[in-house]
Amino acid sequence: MELFEERGFEGTTVADIAERAGLTKRTFFRYFGDKREVLFSGTELLEAGFVEAIAAAPADASPLDAVAAGLDAMADRLQDVGDAGARKRQAIIAANPDLQERELIKMNGFATAAAAALRDRGVTEPAASLAAEAGIAVLRIAFARWIEGPPGQDIHELLHESLVELKAVAA
Amino acid sequence: MELFEERGFEGTTVADIAERAGLTKRTFFRYFGDKREVLFSGTELLEAGFVEAIAAAPADASPLDAVAAGLDAMADRLQDVGDAGARKRQAIIAANPDLQERELIKMNGFATAAAAALRDRGVTEPAASLAAEAGIAVLRIAFARWIEGPPGQDIHELLHESLVELKAVAA
Repeated sequence: MELFEERGFEGTTVADIAERAGLTKRTFFRYFGDKREVLFSGTELLEAGFVEAIAAAPADASPLDAVAAGLDAMADRLQDVGDAGARKRQAIIAANPDLQERELIKMNGFATAAAAALRDRGVTEPAASLAAEAGIAVLRIAFARWIEGPPGQDIHELLHESLVELKAVAA
Repeated sequence: MELFEERGFEGTTVADIAERAGLTKRTFFRYFGDKREVLFSGTELLEAGFVEAIAAAPADASPLDAVAAGLDAMADRLQDVGDAGARKRQAIIAANPDLQERELIKMNGFATAAAAALRDRGVTEPAASLAAEAGIAVLRIAFARWIEGPPGQDIHELLHESLVELKAVAA
């Protein structure tokens, strides 16, 4: 990440990253498919925690509230990374169209995973997909406010505010 | 489009497309950046009509209802293409990860354009972005039902049903 900031994403080679991390290139490729994956390595974990929390939501939670429980779990992890780290990562992604595409694909994956988790809870379609997509819309907007806003905001609160706002918008 | 169906997207060259359309390659490239653009050439028009209809919605329409007016305009054009045409296009896109990425980027563009159109109507953030994203979620789900469901469905009705469902999910 430091290297991407110093040299730009395009200007950083896998050899550079491996050297800075004290790894051989071979070891690097055992963990990452390519250098893009360095930026997205946390996403699978984020998705796993998100899906788990949707599954674990109270049985009587509405579909959207189950997704909100998932977002809350996601917020725990994001808050650990912190807005400063998230802001750096976003600056690297914003500078590179390939990375923006990858980011969109990951977000789309979150929505697909959330819809599947809701169907496992017995939610029918199209409610499952709509609640999932609406939840990801809430995430995207809260996340943007987190990294664009003043340092030190709590992403949990921003997610909660965005959810309330979504409910108002759809009322 | 016929060629993509016959030979697959990868197996079709720009020369093939130009020949079938009775164009020189040079003329082809005057209209399209690459062969992917052939599949997405209608998208700009779709977005323009969408944004125009949001701007033209009654002044007292809620943000989400203004987006719904935009979706209705989009449905007019989609209904002209028909579900058979949309289904063929989707089959080509589904078979190619590059095209799926492009499709996600276009959908993301719709949401960005809708949020801007809402801000022009005086809607503040985050309501503008949330209503825009929620509207695109409605579009995606209605569109999937249109092309996956029985032939001859009216996309207007599916959009309307998805919107009602979104309101129920968010209630």
